[in-house]
Amino acid sequence: MDNLFIKVNLILQESFRYIHMKHFCLAFTFFLNLTVVCQSDQVDRDFLNRIFEEAYTNGQAMYYLNELCSKTPNRLSGSIGAKKAIELTSKMLDDIDQIDVFKQAVLVPHWERISESAQLISSNGESQEIAVCALGGSISTPEGGIEAELVEVQNFGQLKKLGKKQIAGKIVFFNRPMNPIHLSTFTAYSGSVDQRWAGAMKAAEYGAKAVLVRSLSLRKDNFPHTGSMAYQDGIEKIPAAAISTIAAELLHQKIQLDPKTKVKLNLECITHPDAHSHNVIGEWKGAEKPSEYIIVGGHLDAWDLGQGAHDDGAGIAHSIEALRLLNKLGYKPRHSLRAVLFMNEENGLRGGKEYAKVVKNKNETHLAALESDRGGFMPKGFRYEGPEDLVNWFSSQIQSLHEFGMYDNKVGGAGADIGQLDKDKTLLIGLVPESSRYFDFHHASSDKLEAVNERELETGAAILAAIIYLLDQHIDSVQ
Amino acid sequence: MDNLFIKVNLILQESFRYIHMKHFCLAFTFFLNLTVVCQSDQVDRDFLNRIFEEAYTNGQAMYYLNELCSKTPNRLSGSIGAKKAIELTSKMLDDIDQIDVFKQAVLVPHWERISESAQLISSNGESQEIAVCALGGSISTPEGGIEAELVEVQNFGQLKKLGKKQIAGKIVFFNRPMNPIHLSTFTAYSGSVDQRWAGAMKAAEYGAKAVLVRSLSLRKDNFPHTGSMAYQDGIEKIPAAAISTIAAELLHQKIQLDPKTKVKLNLECITHPDAHSHNVIGEWKGAEKPSEYIIVGGHLDAWDLGQGAHDDGAGIAHSIEALRLLNKLGYKPRHSLRAVLFMNEENGLRGGKEYAKVVKNKNETHLAALESDRGGFMPKGFRYEGPEDLVNWFSSQIQSLHEFGMYDNKVGGAGADIGQLDKDKTLLIGLVPESSRYFDFHHASSDKLEAVNERELETGAAILAAIIYLLDQHIDSVQ
Repeated sequence: MDNLFIKVNLILQESFRYIHMKHFCLAFTFFLNLTVVCQSDQVDRDFLNRIFEEAYTNGQAMYYLNELCSKTPNRLSGSIGAKKAIELTSKMLDDIDQIDVFKQAVLVPHWERISESAQLISSNGESQEIAVCALGGSISTPEGGIEAELVEVQNFGQLKKLGKKQIAGKIVFFNRPMNPIHLSTFTAYSGSVDQRWAGAMKAAEYGAKAVLVRSLSLRKDNFPHTGSMAYQDGIEKIPAAAISTIAAELLHQKIQLDPKTKVKLNLECITHPDAHSHNVIGEWKGAEKPSEYIIVGGHLDAWDLGQGAHDDGAGIAHSIEALRLLNKLGYKPRHSLRAVLFMNEENGLRGGKEYAKVVKNKNETHLAALESDRGGFMPKGFRYEGPEDLVNWFSSQIQSLHEFGMYDNKVGGAGADIGQLDKDKTLLIGLVPESSRYFDFHHASSDKLEAVNERELETGAAILAAIIYLLDQHIDSVQ
Repeated sequence: MDNLFIKVNLILQESFRYIHMKHFCLAFTFFLNLTVVCQSDQVDRDFLNRIFEEAYTNGQAMYYLNELCSKTPNRLSGSIGAKKAIELTSKMLDDIDQIDVFKQAVLVPHWERISESAQLISSNGESQEIAVCALGGSISTPEGGIEAELVEVQNFGQLKKLGKKQIAGKIVFFNRPMNPIHLSTFTAYSGSVDQRWAGAMKAAEYGAKAVLVRSLSLRKDNFPHTGSMAYQDGIEKIPAAAISTIAAELLHQKIQLDPKTKVKLNLECITHPDAHSHNVIGEWKGAEKPSEYIIVGGHLDAWDLGQGAHDDGAGIAHSIEALRLLNKLGYKPRHSLRAVLFMNEENGLRGGKEYAKVVKNKNETHLAALESDRGGFMPKGFRYEGPEDLVNWFSSQIQSLHEFGMYDNKVGGAGADIGQLDKDKTLLIGLVPESSRYFDFHHASSDKLEAVNERELETGAAILAAIIYLLDQHIDSVQ
């Protein structure tokens, strides 16, 4: 691509004058013709332009994410990393003018990965390593590991058909791939995650000794993707591991050629007693209605592989940066604004539940809650739900955000942490970025800082700041 | 992100049955509820679903791109790489059933980069290397290089103000960054590219010995970005190089602290006589109206740094894959379809001009022309132009593509190569992918295969195939 822009530019070239940073606002209005941002109010439009100006010229989202990823890469609930992340992000929020930080105590599960390995063993005795990781919450294998033949299935219905006779004593290999044809990869994820979550309890009913689950990723690579799994009271607990998509394809082929193929699985994991932990809350008091809240959040815990850069370091950076942007521009919020960094979304949702419980007990008015927990990719819309009047109002507001690329908007499924709040009282809004690359990294050791693009990340923070501003200015008019 | 999807999934879990690949069409319809794709025609809708099914389960776009990038990374017009790329892509097209390949001769500029280097020299004699590359078309520096003090400017107006007295004998350093506040990075590019294209001729008017131009990228890194530049008859030719954004920032600081800072620039480049080259055309005869054409194309040449993966390997892979997808599905085109792989978009546009000239001379009816030359990122819309009735018709069709994420649609600026065709006769459509990351790689050695995401690339090919299908089926009804 070149000549087209040269042509366009040659026309402008003589009249073109460089517009300095301080005139960005004018330039922004001129070039993008953002007449739609808030049709009734030039003041709103100018302010939104200033948010984007600050974000794109002096954004700090990548700085926050870099700090979090490099200093606290392992921050699963209950871990030392999680403790450090609480201190680190408290300091980040505290460094923003007028924001007071407090920590909300919450008891969290504390599971720890010690070691993991697996070998594929052919019937002739040859063996080769395959890439596995323990699923979050799994028990260890017995001393010496588990060595058994495999039963490959695609779903729980097949387990039932096979029955105890063909499953007992074996390792069940769940190999249903994410369905690549869905434009939203979250739809594909949702259609396959049952294997990971409930595979062990389902297979144990038929006497399986362990389960291997194909990693939930659309990419063929050698990173196993962890994630939460559950046991059920009254059903035996068996070890559960994810295998990389490449290992899953290999295993599938091996079983076809050599049905007596075995896998030897070694997992060492510890389920500690529940641990004391915290949600981190940064509060910026509102000038007019300080006891009414608009909150924005993500989750502070992350799986213990990689750095949790997209899941959900991005949401943490988005939330802190959204408040910093407003603060830097000298904004005076009417309602109280909070960044809420939830603990334990990944394996318990205790932080979200605790926050909602306190809101209910204290009868705190929460007008709206925003969540970012779908990665740091280019934002393209929202999922939102709540009281009918607010939902209708937000639907009409969204039209005005098309110029910012926010086209993909639907009612429902706003977010896991904010979803604990009372939907009859609070408007819940989840940020939806482009999803193509999300599950390439999700819960895997590849979810690192370098998988995040600075401009895409910063755009998410700017969008959230813009929504907070619009809510703070206008949400009262709806009620 | 986790719990939300587990919740959704647990509801579905018991009733869920894995849908095999062969049932994707049903699944696609069910999950995405694509009732909007073509409201009047279930047949169309089913076919579009099949295109996406094939693309996402058996796509070859990344294979084509890998071949092109790994076997012919350097394919600037006139080079051996360009010759090899012509052979390679001819073979790719020839391997698709029913497609006949021919080459269209075109005489192209042949410029060659031999070597380049620069040192920043402080007034105390200390020197350090800075990252530079010759701009495409530049002359060499004289034997021994050019060593001179610098004049830093932001635009041509400043050159005029400074005048010959302050510029003569110096190196002009154009340091106007791309303006980051534009949501579309192409707007930012268009606002800064004049420095690269016309900087040398403008500075030479005031007696400058050479120009250094800040790389056209929003990223702070150490890759210089090349690109075309021009000389003007009657004005002295002076050497022109791009410097990396990091080097530009450094140079700016140095000049502030030490105005006598010099740069020593060495460029060795050869402008060979024009070379014989070709556009590559793959033609698939239409069953009903074989003398009416719908074409899809990108450009086969690429700058000699990196592999030209996004610019425009992606457009080549898109174009070949779009026809392969239709072919694989047993489609029988009504009109003749062509993939046109244009030579020399980067530094002359000779391929696009030659193709249009032949169309005009032979009076070939071209109903529509599609172009992909904005990278292999996630597609989000179109730029289109042409006869009023066709533009209006296409505007109405676009509504039905929102479900595929194609929201960003505007009239105008379809593409450089197809832009040579007669707009009064042909509907021109340019694919618009998400632009955030494009100029991170554009014309730099970082524009390599690993900068392209397979799913994003394949989506572009599927979208193009879908548009070709819709045009082929319905464009006659408009006229």
